[in-house]
Amino acid sequence: MTDIAKLTPLVELIHKALESEHLAQAAMLFLRLHPADRADVFELLNEEDRGRILGHLDIATTADLFDELEDQQTVEAAEIISVERLADVLDEMDPDEAADLLGDLSPEKAERAIIEMEDADDVLPLLNYPDETAGGRMTTAFVSLNANITADQAIRYLRQLSPDSDIPYYLFVRDDNEKIVGVIGLRDLVVANPERAIREIMDTDIISISPYTDQEQAARMMTHYDLSVLPVLDEHNHLIGIITHDDILDVIEDEATEDIYRLASVADTDLQPESGTYVQLRGRLPWLLLNTLTALFASWVISIFGDLFVQVAILAFFQSVVAGQGGSAASQNVAMIVRALALGKIEKSRIMPVLIRQLWVGLLQGIVIGIIIGMGVGLWQHNPYLGLVLGLALIGNMLVAAAVGTLMPLLFQALGQDPAMTSSVLVTAATDSLGFFIFLSLAKIFLPMILQYLA
Amino acid sequence: MTDIAKLTPLVELIHKALESEHLAQAAMLFLRLHPADRADVFELLNEEDRGRILGHLDIATTADLFDELEDQQTVEAAEIISVERLADVLDEMDPDEAADLLGDLSPEKAERAIIEMEDADDVLPLLNYPDETAGGRMTTAFVSLNANITADQAIRYLRQLSPDSDIPYYLFVRDDNEKIVGVIGLRDLVVANPERAIREIMDTDIISISPYTDQEQAARMMTHYDLSVLPVLDEHNHLIGIITHDDILDVIEDEATEDIYRLASVADTDLQPESGTYVQLRGRLPWLLLNTLTALFASWVISIFGDLFVQVAILAFFQSVVAGQGGSAASQNVAMIVRALALGKIEKSRIMPVLIRQLWVGLLQGIVIGIIIGMGVGLWQHNPYLGLVLGLALIGNMLVAAAVGTLMPLLFQALGQDPAMTSSVLVTAATDSLGFFIFLSLAKIFLPMILQYLA
Repeated sequence: MTDIAKLTPLVELIHKALESEHLAQAAMLFLRLHPADRADVFELLNEEDRGRILGHLDIATTADLFDELEDQQTVEAAEIISVERLADVLDEMDPDEAADLLGDLSPEKAERAIIEMEDADDVLPLLNYPDETAGGRMTTAFVSLNANITADQAIRYLRQLSPDSDIPYYLFVRDDNEKIVGVIGLRDLVVANPERAIREIMDTDIISISPYTDQEQAARMMTHYDLSVLPVLDEHNHLIGIITHDDILDVIEDEATEDIYRLASVADTDLQPESGTYVQLRGRLPWLLLNTLTALFASWVISIFGDLFVQVAILAFFQSVVAGQGGSAASQNVAMIVRALALGKIEKSRIMPVLIRQLWVGLLQGIVIGIIIGMGVGLWQHNPYLGLVLGLALIGNMLVAAAVGTLMPLLFQALGQDPAMTSSVLVTAATDSLGFFIFLSLAKIFLPMILQYLA
Repeated sequence: MTDIAKLTPLVELIHKALESEHLAQAAMLFLRLHPADRADVFELLNEEDRGRILGHLDIATTADLFDELEDQQTVEAAEIISVERLADVLDEMDPDEAADLLGDLSPEKAERAIIEMEDADDVLPLLNYPDETAGGRMTTAFVSLNANITADQAIRYLRQLSPDSDIPYYLFVRDDNEKIVGVIGLRDLVVANPERAIREIMDTDIISISPYTDQEQAARMMTHYDLSVLPVLDEHNHLIGIITHDDILDVIEDEATEDIYRLASVADTDLQPESGTYVQLRGRLPWLLLNTLTALFASWVISIFGDLFVQVAILAFFQSVVAGQGGSAASQNVAMIVRALALGKIEKSRIMPVLIRQLWVGLLQGIVIGIIIGMGVGLWQHNPYLGLVLGLALIGNMLVAAAVGTLMPLLFQALGQDPAMTSSVLVTAATDSLGFFIFLSLAKIFLPMILQYLA
């Protein structure tokens, strides 16, 4: 792959060529690239350069570029060109990408572009489905065959279709009522006896999806069954679109980004390290503000034990150890459960065994860490009872961490929410408050013994 | 997709059929499933049932099952059957899966199986490459054509190969020196004029990879360029294998799991919520032990200011607020940088702008959170200087969080380590210790004013 880092010098070259009005040279440099790299270079150009280069690309190249650009970038580029040109580009784009773009444009611009388009029929049905559903991901660029024609007739039919068109590698087979009854790979078509009917060589075991199913489910089906194409059928078993493996790669990457961001309390999953300041604050501050509330609640919990610190200031040194270890252990639990749910690896009947296993692991982790910290601090501060309190509090908070970290994502899932919303802010709210409470309660109980060793 | 939850009743049925010696019925229920679902059901059966069912599957079905099972499960299943049978199964398996299995078996068992195998030649070359490289992911099940034959000759050649064999949808074209000079999709072959030579219709723009490149790079190339197959070429431009899109789905999911686990301080990326207790402790305790050290270091930082708590016990209520907010903000930074690096979206020349943007966002987040908490606590405790100290400390620690959260993953990347190793344990070590230090230092400076309001 052309590493994105290696594109920078090229961006400079193109920028200089454009600036000195060597438009042909700039276009040549640009066209020499793979379409996917063109999109990367385009995104690195400034707005003025983008406008100049767009003016020098033909319709087909512009369509390829628009197919590859990130959604927001496509919208911005579409604003630069005239509606007539945009309509031509939309006609050439992949139907699913064209539908996404139309959905992102202002309603007026989208309407005008649709009126100007020639092949709007491919695109319009796709506008009915939300972006993150199977219908929103599918394309109408599929080929279907009647079950009664022969392999040879099918191949001749494919030759008739323009060889430029992106015929998918799987062809769907319909009966006389237009219902989908089978699927045949181009491979099986090619190696079959030319005289045999399609219905004799097709695979009747079709794995399909409905248009309103979540894209994540589509991705999971395609991964699980190693499918390179997944047909989308309506309630009458009519084929309305297909999802291809490259769409699914994007879904899987998007879903992983979403999980990673949500677990780290970043609400806006489109956020990039260089995104605008306002966008970053909007996507990050809400969780920190929630964190503010939970942190102040934890402060209030500590304040209940306010007198303790006057008598035993060293408690203030170690209260965060208990809370912190609980938070780390809970994050481990959340990550494992969220990932297992995302990959479909937890079944409902296994929730109790999972919880019991996690509580047991939490108990053992608590015992190990509790003994180490308890003994370490006991010796350091010459105060065995302080060590005992710390050790017991760690065991208690590790159990809290295991319970909260396991149950919270499962609860979110049961409520129909994304389990990754169980972000660090929410679990640490529990492990902090309860961690402080357990530690300081135990300290209060053992206060006379702790005081005895202070002197 | 058959949801895994829905497989449980089937597992029960199969288990009962096996127990009551209705082996044929059990096998029938099992065989009715899609191979991918068979693997899921097999993993849910107990060891005894697995042995019974394996005894009733033919070689081809066993090979399909082994292709689909998780690596560890395949090894366990391979231990149940005889070496002779295992060799037959290995011959039928996908070469890349067979190589993985041989690599996981005990050296003696692997050697004996290889001796018994008929098609070991497909598999042996794959044993030379580490699991997580392009060579480790590739398969030798590819088809190559001489550039000088015609489209029609090519199709007839494909018909000659067994139609059962999994011919990939892309065929590689070699010159007379066996060097790869082009690639042609089955689609283009089918729609081409039958008389044209392959060299005239092939695509000469080949995107390829070397066998020792990391699998993540292969996945990124295939995603970026929307490839359904990526050829692996040796240094002489000879084709030694291909990576197919379904392998890449697994890589992308594995890498996402790895990032999520590492960010949450889980060292063993194969860990499942129900994994054995010992495995879980081995995969999770090391980071918690490291956390123990960093937590005790933070305790020591606090202990430097020990006298403060005797004079102003309420400081103990709020010290964790500063540390906690810093930790949350740093996690946000780390998630964004790790993900941008994983998706190849940060270039070296942009590191300074990214850092500046993040420091600026950190400063603004610090000001907002600082004002809210500073004013809130100032009013709650009737102590404006305590509020001021908290507000200033929050601004300071947010800057620390932005710097550490941005630079630590970039540093790991520069050192050739996985940036996701910048787990919560490592960043919170910095935001905790420095957070406590900043807060308590400021408290010491403003002590007279704070004391003035305590009455």
